[in-house]
Amino acid sequence: MSVLTHFDSEGQAHMVDVSAKAPTVRVAVAEGRIRMQPETLALIREGRAGKGDVLGVARIAAIQGAKRTADLIPLCHPLALSRVAVELTLEDSPCAVRCQATVQTVGPTGVEMEALTAVQVGLLTVYDMCKAADRGMLITDVGLLEKQGGKSGHWVRAEGDLPAA
Amino acid sequence: MSVLTHFDSEGQAHMVDVSAKAPTVRVAVAEGRIRMQPETLALIREGRAGKGDVLGVARIAAIQGAKRTADLIPLCHPLALSRVAVELTLEDSPCAVRCQATVQTVGPTGVEMEALTAVQVGLLTVYDMCKAADRGMLITDVGLLEKQGGKSGHWVRAEGDLPAA
Amino acid sequence: MSVLTHFDSEGQAHMVDVSAKAPTVRVAVAEGRIRMQPETLALIREGRAGKGDVLGVARIAAIQGAKRTADLIPLCHPLALSRVAVELTLEDSPCAVRCQATVQTVGPTGVEMEALTAVQVGLLTVYDMCKAADRGMLITDVGLLEKQGGKSGHWVRAEGDLPAA
Amino acid sequence: MSVLTHFDSEGQAHMVDVSAKAPTVRVAVAEGRIRMQPETLALIREGRAGKGDVLGVARIAAIQGAKRTADLIPLCHPLALSRVAVELTLEDSPCAVRCQATVQTVGPTGVEMEALTAVQVGLLTVYDMCKAADRGMLITDVGLLEKQGGKSGHWVRAEGDLPAA
Amino acid sequence: MSVLTHFDSEGQAHMVDVSAKAPTVRVAVAEGRIRMQPETLALIREGRAGKGDVLGVARIAAIQGAKRTADLIPLCHPLALSRVAVELTLEDSPCAVRCQATVQTVGPTGVEMEALTAVQVGLLTVYDMCKAADRGMLITDVGLLEKQGGKSGHWVRAEGDLPAA
Amino acid sequence: MSVLTHFDSEGQAHMVDVSAKAPTVRVAVAEGRIRMQPETLALIREGRAGKGDVLGVARIAAIQGAKRTADLIPLCHPLALSRVAVELTLEDSPCAVRCQATVQTVGPTGVEMEALTAVQVGLLTVYDMCKAADRGMLITDVGLLEKQGGKSGHWVRAEGDLPAA
Repeated sequence: MSVLTHFDSEGQAHMVDVSAKAPTVRVAVAEGRIRMQPETLALIREGRAGKGDVLGVARIAAIQGAKRTADLIPLCHPLALSRVAVELTLEDSPCAVRCQATVQTVGPTGVEMEALTAVQVGLLTVYDMCKAADRGMLITDVGLLEKQGGKSGHWVRAEGDLPAA
Repeated sequence: MSVLTHFDSEGQAHMVDVSAKAPTVRVAVAEGRIRMQPETLALIREGRAGKGDVLGVARIAAIQGAKRTADLIPLCHPLALSRVAVELTLEDSPCAVRCQATVQTVGPTGVEMEALTAVQVGLLTVYDMCKAADRGMLITDVGLLEKQGGKSGHWVRAEGDLPAA
Repeated sequence: MSVLTHFDSEGQAHMVDVSAKAPTVRVAVAEGRIRMQPETLALIREGRAGKGDVLGVARIAAIQGAKRTADLIPLCHPLALSRVAVELTLEDSPCAVRCQATVQTVGPTGVEMEALTAVQVGLLTVYDMCKAADRGMLITDVGLLEKQGGKSGHWVRAEGDLPAA
Repeated sequence: MSVLTHFDSEGQAHMVDVSAKAPTVRVAVAEGRIRMQPETLALIREGRAGKGDVLGVARIAAIQGAKRTADLIPLCHPLALSRVAVELTLEDSPCAVRCQATVQTVGPTGVEMEALTAVQVGLLTVYDMCKAADRGMLITDVGLLEKQGGKSGHWVRAEGDLPAA
Repeated sequence: MSVLTHFDSEGQAHMVDVSAKAPTVRVAVAEGRIRMQPETLALIREGRAGKGDVLGVARIAAIQGAKRTADLIPLCHPLALSRVAVELTLEDSPCAVRCQATVQTVGPTGVEMEALTAVQVGLLTVYDMCKAADRGMLITDVGLLEKQGGKSGHWVRAEGDLPAA
Repeated sequence: MSVLTHFDSEGQAHMVDVSAKAPTVRVAVAEGRIRMQPETLALIREGRAGKGDVLGVARIAAIQGAKRTADLIPLCHPLALSRVAVELTLEDSPCAVRCQATVQTVGPTGVEMEALTAVQVGLLTVYDMCKAADRGMLITDVGLLEKQGGKSGHWVRAEGDLPAA
């Protein structure tokens, strides 16, 4: 039966004890999108051709964001990340920038939050750079795609894992 | 005609000059949701009754997140925020936690990014606390609702501002 | 004979070399109090009943504070904490909030500073939330209660360890 | 009648709105002590004579700590500090290091938390540097001495402001 | 006669009082170089053509570095920067990357340290990205070029301001 | 043949995967200088005699700077440093402060960037404290002296490693 492990038996938040967990290689992959007007997507695409590399800036922000996860998320354990890779791609129907982050560590806990934080910071950075042109952009579908390592083994998201619309 | 103001005429990213802009009161309101399984929502609701206050922790994380915006988003100006309020509510159909953040400053630039960052960090914190029970949660519909102050005046999001689905 | 190990033979501050120390499980427990007027304590107690959870906010601040220790204390080694638990309790005679923090790591140095920093940040947060009602609150008796792991073994504070009043 | 202003009418924590408050010069003075064994105090005193300047390191940590206040205390407003001065003195009966911090800003809110945080970080740094010699040190009597600026005018702590022992 | 203003009359470091200084527009321009082997410079130049944009990453790091100045330099006042622009150029004889940063604020103190910190972080980032190819790179000639605003007026570095070689 | 390892095959920046590298003891030594007017050097030297310890403040800033490296340099791995030592010395011909930093870790990657960042922050702090007296100071010759650990073994800088002047 599921419970919220971040609270003790009296309902008090704590950072759970992972002292006894062996360090193993852990990987997490997360993705998300920022949807926008076609004109906004066109601006980003043109920028790639030399006028301003929105995706390059967002990638750096995402990588640095992964390193700030334990600062931002109160009950996250600080971890020494061993890899962060971020891919940003343009999508046309519907118009969006997709961000995918892969994070690895050799440690006692997983890196889902680091991968998700990287995605969120990457997409927020796209929002920041394009907001003068398009205030209605939406960040959507941010979630975990895959997780490896630790006692729960290898998990790949299946359709049935998603919440009902 | 729209351009990406975060790049100069040679396509180089910069933090744009706001030295000549008068400080005025600025407000931004952003919202977003994290969708989840009904059982996960039930866990959060029960926690409110004493076993662990997920929303209370997420609210604090969101407020602190707003203060870290300029650290996270490369071209954001650092700002002295004069108000941050965060509301988290439970929704049943579909099952979700909704997060709304209102941020104010008296300054030369808007606080959209601060409001959006607060929402994102709040929702990520909900994800963190519930991920042992539900890995498939999705963060969606994160966007700006309203913006006041500065030369662009008062903007409230209309249906037509949203990207096409 | 005791010496100040944070200085080298020429009196220059340094972060001491722990490269050769084996990582072991280390625990530290610290406590402290903030003393206040009875009316202030009553406000906090009432808040627990729904009007505003001072202790819940302070607990989160304390946990996050533990993670910032190496940022704050110049010669502290950065450490990957494996557990942080914080307990806040109300005391009536004299009127006070007591904060106790337990911190663990698997590493080459102890976590006394992390436990003490958690206590201090937790108590400062109580001060912040109550200062409009009571400016004369005092933070007192902040110290280490217990320490485990490393070559010095298990230490529990005895009366004789305390400084003379 | 006193209330906890950091919570709204529904008991939710927020960073209170100071947008309408005029920036004025604000000063806060806080103090605190770390009590210790006479031998520990002697080590610090000798260090002043060239073997290692504990107080010099603690002063820098305290000044930097003041600048981190809004990062550490969840509902604190970020402020541009215009002055931080920290005095550390040795006391013999009882044996202690006393830390006093004076902080100023020109802004819409007071700087009590910044002064108190400076004191706490300064005293924690003393603890860190001396803990190999004396684990039983206690940080005590940390409180606000004086506050100027804002609508509450000039306040100097009187005996009656202190909590009963 | 010159004195070190960051110390009081007893030789204690402090963050000097700028409460009474009126906020004015302030500008600082700093520059520096990282010298390297011709092969290393060639790698960076080729990267510009699509294999990896070293200068783009360094520019973002430099801008973010400017915002961290008060965190890094103990006695620096925290400031709300109103502009940061960073230019990186390749030089052939001798082989080097030159970094120039321009920083502005509307505030009571200058932004020399912010401009210098931006340059240093930008050059360190170049070092990081090229160090696998060239360990002997040297960061040189980092200094202030120009300073505007405040009571000292407009200063442009002249030959005579430089230290003798 | 040399390549820029911080970019993948498509030229996208990433934090390279070190998950499979065994943690070993790693050491890096870096140095740099800040050159200045003879009068400025005299001010620092006098300060050592009691009026204000510039070098003591710079040393603390350098040590803390080493711990912030992964925050500042986008593609740097966060590392748990096991030693940081910083030496600052006065040089007379030409007039300069020399800063040397030695950093150690037990980890999967080297600590060159940490040693270089410590040097840079230390020298910037000297600049900050002396800039009221001497605006033309130059930070020069910042580079790596030595590196130990990892598959590349022990490297000591030779004349031939330096870039041509």
